[in-house]
Amino acid sequence: MNLIARLYDVNSSEPRVVIHRDDCKELGVKQMDRVKLEAVSSQVIVVSISDTVVNKGEILVPMSVMARIGAKDKQKIKVSYSPKPESVKSIRKKMDSLKLTKEEINEIVFDILENRLSNIEISAWLTALYINGMDNEEISNFTQSMVATGEKIEFDRTPVFDFHSLGGVPGNKITPIVVSIVASAGLMIPKTSSRAISSACGTSDFVEVFCPVELEASKLKNIAETAGGVLAWGGSMNIAPVDDMVIDIEYPLGINPRAQMLASILSKKLALSATHLLVDIPMGTGTKVRTLEEAREYARDLMELGNKLGIRTECAITYGDQPVGNAIGPAPEARECIRILEGAAHPASVIEKACDLAGMILEMGGIPDGPSKAREILSSGKALAKFREIVEAQGGRKGITSEDIKIGKFVHDIKAVRAGYVHSINNKDLVTIARTAGAPADKGAGIILHRKKGQRAEKGEILFQIYADNQAKADRAKDIAIRLEPMDIEGMLIKKVPNPPALKGI
Amino acid sequence: MNLIARLYDVNSSEPRVVIHRDDCKELGVKQMDRVKLEAVSSQVIVVSISDTVVNKGEILVPMSVMARIGAKDKQKIKVSYSPKPESVKSIRKKMDSLKLTKEEINEIVFDILENRLSNIEISAWLTALYINGMDNEEISNFTQSMVATGEKIEFDRTPVFDFHSLGGVPGNKITPIVVSIVASAGLMIPKTSSRAISSACGTSDFVEVFCPVELEASKLKNIAETAGGVLAWGGSMNIAPVDDMVIDIEYPLGINPRAQMLASILSKKLALSATHLLVDIPMGTGTKVRTLEEAREYARDLMELGNKLGIRTECAITYGDQPVGNAIGPAPEARECIRILEGAAHPASVIEKACDLAGMILEMGGIPDGPSKAREILSSGKALAKFREIVEAQGGRKGITSEDIKIGKFVHDIKAVRAGYVHSINNKDLVTIARTAGAPADKGAGIILHRKKGQRAEKGEILFQIYADNQAKADRAKDIAIRLEPMDIEGMLIKKVPNPPALKGI
Repeated sequence: MNLIARLYDVNSSEPRVVIHRDDCKELGVKQMDRVKLEAVSSQVIVVSISDTVVNKGEILVPMSVMARIGAKDKQKIKVSYSPKPESVKSIRKKMDSLKLTKEEINEIVFDILENRLSNIEISAWLTALYINGMDNEEISNFTQSMVATGEKIEFDRTPVFDFHSLGGVPGNKITPIVVSIVASAGLMIPKTSSRAISSACGTSDFVEVFCPVELEASKLKNIAETAGGVLAWGGSMNIAPVDDMVIDIEYPLGINPRAQMLASILSKKLALSATHLLVDIPMGTGTKVRTLEEAREYARDLMELGNKLGIRTECAITYGDQPVGNAIGPAPEARECIRILEGAAHPASVIEKACDLAGMILEMGGIPDGPSKAREILSSGKALAKFREIVEAQGGRKGITSEDIKIGKFVHDIKAVRAGYVHSINNKDLVTIARTAGAPADKGAGIILHRKKGQRAEKGEILFQIYADNQAKADRAKDIAIRLEPMDIEGMLIKKVPNPPALKGI
Repeated sequence: MNLIARLYDVNSSEPRVVIHRDDCKELGVKQMDRVKLEAVSSQVIVVSISDTVVNKGEILVPMSVMARIGAKDKQKIKVSYSPKPESVKSIRKKMDSLKLTKEEINEIVFDILENRLSNIEISAWLTALYINGMDNEEISNFTQSMVATGEKIEFDRTPVFDFHSLGGVPGNKITPIVVSIVASAGLMIPKTSSRAISSACGTSDFVEVFCPVELEASKLKNIAETAGGVLAWGGSMNIAPVDDMVIDIEYPLGINPRAQMLASILSKKLALSATHLLVDIPMGTGTKVRTLEEAREYARDLMELGNKLGIRTECAITYGDQPVGNAIGPAPEARECIRILEGAAHPASVIEKACDLAGMILEMGGIPDGPSKAREILSSGKALAKFREIVEAQGGRKGITSEDIKIGKFVHDIKAVRAGYVHSINNKDLVTIARTAGAPADKGAGIILHRKKGQRAEKGEILFQIYADNQAKADRAKDIAIRLEPMDIEGMLIKKVPNPPALKGI
């Protein structure tokens, strides 16, 4: 059937064409079926049916698809029914808990990339992955397919070190410190990071407070090869783009299937030609990994997968029961991070975690006594100099200092309503409060903790402060903070046991 | 935040509002998140983000949603972030293979009805149902929630008989015959049917060849109470509407989760106040049910669920390895069906199946020797008279005959390329051919079989004919028929075994 193509100026996560109901009947096409469009070149795409927004004989085509098939507004194009892609059968196979071949996985990945699978089908795929999982051979194939969907960056230097945190613990601002230490020691670490999805602040969210993070591949390569380190946003390059496409589906479902997560991490490292990788696995209530057993399992899988893919991988299981350091949110974390590079002695948890992890990377690079070497580089000021070199190379201010970072002007103090010890801190509640205050979009928004676990507060003393860039969000965050009570304060005496207890039970 | 509502005239299976990217940042809203709209009344709805089709300060609102909140084009409305509905947690629970409570199931069903769940979430729900299933208590609660989403029809007469086929076997045109026989015997059977989703022809698709099937509830009630039988399309009433909403998601995935299927069947019967139900379970390769064990399991579940819901349920496991009768497609099936009511002796498979099933219903209604009583009613002409009464009451031609039915004018004969016996007939291939010929949208399109399983054909004799309403579709169907070879013809000698075989293996 020939239809007149009309430009359809809707920017959606899922490009579709719109065809009149009568033409659909004629084509034998139902809602969510696919058609093949043919002009200069061809494309298969999902159909929406309408009898109001499109006339009979016409087809609404999004701009990106017009460009792809080489057609213009009001041009006649050939439209025909296109059967479901074969990859839908492979999704069914995973629903039935069967193992997929390399080719089947590759087809699914490329059909997502080319918009041949609809959001409904991708959602079914992720749900099946979440429930039925993949073995390491499948994950390894999955990773390689994801790498093949995008750009691969090759460096003139080798080895290439990399670092990744599974996340889930707020305030984890160690990346710029780790990268600066490792690069100071002469190893190359071209680190790409992500932005927050459901957290209060991703690494790229706070790094961009002091320098641009959207680097082109050639610039990233150049900075890494000269400075030895880089602090880029992974999303700015065309690296494993399919991964970003599925995040749009994972987020509303609130799932991150293990196989998808592992393939996602490793595909980005593989695309950046990493030869050595350290993975930080924060463990604790409120993080992604709850128990030591689970953490060990992730570590085993990551190391096995790394081996299969030619990346020497080590893992560090770290303490994740409460935030790392005291600051949460873009500017607060940026300031705390730079202060430590400048030589501040607190918060100790940030220094310890950064130096221990940087030390592991140094040892992977053949430098003995890694952790103490890392502390030496940090305290000598070499890490700060390297950090400033990287920031300047990425287009940030020359000689950046922590004084340059401005945090939110609208502040609320949250005080202890009784005296006692902080027994627990709820990571998720803190994230909710920081996000309500505006993080990560409002750079000044976040939280500064004045007490951490095990510390004592008297009644009326500040437990934490909320910072925001506008009054309304500060107020809303305060209301939520009072309702959630993210810090649990108790006396040292938890529960009285009456004597003799035996009498009561009878 | 207040935004100016602008009418958004897009008719989609999933209503959404479109908000400018900057306003979304301000609201803290991501793609697929939800907002609450407030004007005269309020509604929660999924958000699409755009920076091209909507201006800052405006929100695009579909017509249906405008009406619901009582707002007009260019009116200022209040827009605020709305958290994920609780039912998303229940979907996660089912992903984790946990049992859902009555309340959790009810929330999911009503959140689908009210468009509070996005297609992505519904897809995850159906996938989780497909993989992890439900026990009968959950299915019973699910059924009752689905009934509660729509209209319920109460009759002045009782008992109310009903009939359902699980489907999957082409040419299954027995429903008008069963209904006419049962109603002739004085029992009331207000039968609602469906249209084809992926098959060549649903019951409503061929019934509407000779009379309207879109009846309002009051008309259905009236015809059922006076004539005793009715042949309506279930989709014309507001019965368990959520079921139709999920079919839009099931279809592209090609799944029909067992729990969803059972709840779907029973909710429609319950909404029509059925007290007695017969379910036909066609069994065989190419149908939904492959083995006797599986068929028995369906039967057990249906009877147990029927009991829980107060519907006395019986099941018939029927032969489904090849089409029922010879005709496939709307007009071909309508003609064959009416011919049998008129007294034709062939095809015997249609007569046998219709009379045996009608007989079971008669026996449920206390009429002894059901199958022979059914044959008597059919051969006496009483069933034909009742059929004509129903057709006329629904608005069809008075005194309808099989001569009134016109089948497609464009015909291709598919002939045997060698002599032999029909060893197997592939149901799915026949469906593909009939759909390519235009069924079910083109009423004249379909297939007439000249041979069935076990019958002999000489080389050059017609195996089946393709009918279509236009030449292009007839030609395309012929090409596919030649490629698929849906009938497998073999000599009586399947395989020669060379002698002495023992020597070869050594």
